[in-house]
Amino acid sequence: LDPAASAAAAEHLDRLTKPPGSLGKLESLAVKLAGITGKVQPSFRHRGVVVMAADHGVCEEGISAFPAEVTPQMVLNFLSGGAAVNVLARQAGAEVMCVDVGVNAEINHPGLISRKVRYGTDNMISGPAMSREEAEAAIMAGVEVVEDAIRRGISLFVTGEMGIGNTTASAALMSTFTGIATLETVGRGTGINDERMRHKVLVVERALELNRPDLSDPVDVLAKVGGLEIAGLTGVILGAAAHRCPVVLDGFISGAAALAAQRLAPESVNYMIASHVSQEQGHVYLLKALGLEPMLHLDMRLGEGTGGVLALHLVDAACRIMSEMATFESAGVSTG
Amino acid sequence: LDPAASAAAAEHLDRLTKPPGSLGKLESLAVKLAGITGKVQPSFRHRGVVVMAADHGVCEEGISAFPAEVTPQMVLNFLSGGAAVNVLARQAGAEVMCVDVGVNAEINHPGLISRKVRYGTDNMISGPAMSREEAEAAIMAGVEVVEDAIRRGISLFVTGEMGIGNTTASAALMSTFTGIATLETVGRGTGINDERMRHKVLVVERALELNRPDLSDPVDVLAKVGGLEIAGLTGVILGAAAHRCPVVLDGFISGAAALAAQRLAPESVNYMIASHVSQEQGHVYLLKALGLEPMLHLDMRLGEGTGGVLALHLVDAACRIMSEMATFESAGVSTG
Repeated sequence: LDPAASAAAAEHLDRLTKPPGSLGKLESLAVKLAGITGKVQPSFRHRGVVVMAADHGVCEEGISAFPAEVTPQMVLNFLSGGAAVNVLARQAGAEVMCVDVGVNAEINHPGLISRKVRYGTDNMISGPAMSREEAEAAIMAGVEVVEDAIRRGISLFVTGEMGIGNTTASAALMSTFTGIATLETVGRGTGINDERMRHKVLVVERALELNRPDLSDPVDVLAKVGGLEIAGLTGVILGAAAHRCPVVLDGFISGAAALAAQRLAPESVNYMIASHVSQEQGHVYLLKALGLEPMLHLDMRLGEGTGGVLALHLVDAACRIMSEMATFESAGVSTG
Repeated sequence: LDPAASAAAAEHLDRLTKPPGSLGKLESLAVKLAGITGKVQPSFRHRGVVVMAADHGVCEEGISAFPAEVTPQMVLNFLSGGAAVNVLARQAGAEVMCVDVGVNAEINHPGLISRKVRYGTDNMISGPAMSREEAEAAIMAGVEVVEDAIRRGISLFVTGEMGIGNTTASAALMSTFTGIATLETVGRGTGINDERMRHKVLVVERALELNRPDLSDPVDVLAKVGGLEIAGLTGVILGAAAHRCPVVLDGFISGAAALAAQRLAPESVNYMIASHVSQEQGHVYLLKALGLEPMLHLDMRLGEGTGGVLALHLVDAACRIMSEMATFESAGVSTG
């Protein structure tokens, strides 16, 4: 981070024709973006949402409202531009990068970024979801996708994902990293009823008891109770932070990936921007654990990166405020 | 409202490739916009933010952090395009209509819409802020600005305002209309300290005791303890609703105008869209009184229409979801 640029941004904000601090989170966002980029008036013309897709062996336990076949079906929907994230990314001028890091099906499409580590995870209530080497490979896939995108001029990233069953893995990760009880980290995902939610809590409890992930070793946690797309997003976040690019977090699953990134590299949090707080009940506590405040309260629970790309309009607003607003002096307005 | 269009919009939403309801408030917004316009796939290419400006006699009591001369100075800033609302309206493709409905200064500028009813209100702690006829003239100014804009093709409105002292009048209006105590409706406005805030509460209390506005007569309330720009915005809201145009509410002052509109024409609430919840402490309760839920939580407290124009991106998102997303059938995705 560049503290001089942050300080200069804060000073510039107080010269603009508005009461000090009256643009709220847009102002703290502008200061953060200055610190990240070293520029008081940054702009992010080329931005991308990385949608990591993978499957989850734990789906065998009936923890989702949708069947696992929906993962590859939705990947094809992303690739043909018809999913919610495509629509909202077009609106925000963001490129959708769809990455197969572990879908349990063969997908052939010229638009797909194929980084498949394996065909879905194993069922984490019978053993680790994947090996340590596989978790590392998924993280590296995320880092490399970001580095390729940066070479093409992209300077801001949004995290997105698709993977039937991945709120179950995310709850397991969140309970491990934060110590918050599974009753609070397990939510309704795509929309399960009370009975299935009680079952989902028991599944997560059993996976944690069996695998005993080592809190001090975030890669061990990702391997034992995580997911390939979640590890991939951890890599996206770490790659963006390492290259001083802001990374906008989408919802609960992205947040679980961010917790892992934070444990691997605590300073990576300085590069994260929280977009929205979702309806998934654990998300609000997850953001608190990261020390991040969401801007959008839309009761969304779709994932894919949808909340993240919506927040790009707010990132753009913060940038335009810095570059386009008049100062008290230039406009001849009295200060208080 | 068109209940058939709302029902058709809700059905269309459930055919799109996402779990039912998973786009949260974007979905309820899409249903509302269908009911307002009668179209399942509406769009709002031409939209405008009406910034009503006026002065407040109560400023004599020292209730604001900024001097009253800032009102005309900021009007000139709006007209030259340098204020926050100009910047954010450009981003959202919205036209800024700046209306002098009661600024206490002569302003000559070709871009100004001059509808001055009088040179600021009287000090409401010594008598009514204005006459009933003046309040009616201000409301009509708002209605007519909207009707002129509709003739030019604008189909969606955002409320905005400028008037040093107007959170004081808005608190008086809100306490009258809702019965909520002044301790909760009076806030820090542009940023006053604790001592001045205690004084501001006493000023509002005294204005209410002296004027005894008649709750059953909203025009009486606007005249006695309101403001010219607030009455103007009540007219904007009523005019938009009468012509079946959605109207996006900005912050606390816009909300006070909306309360008056609701009392004059209860069905006007169906045309209102809440954008953000501001840092002004009464705003969250004001929105509850209107039965509206905000989408943006940005801790803003600037007014001008800034929060309202930011929400246009969310209105656009709801429209694009309706017109661009694939259905389960068209994309070949399994339902749950």
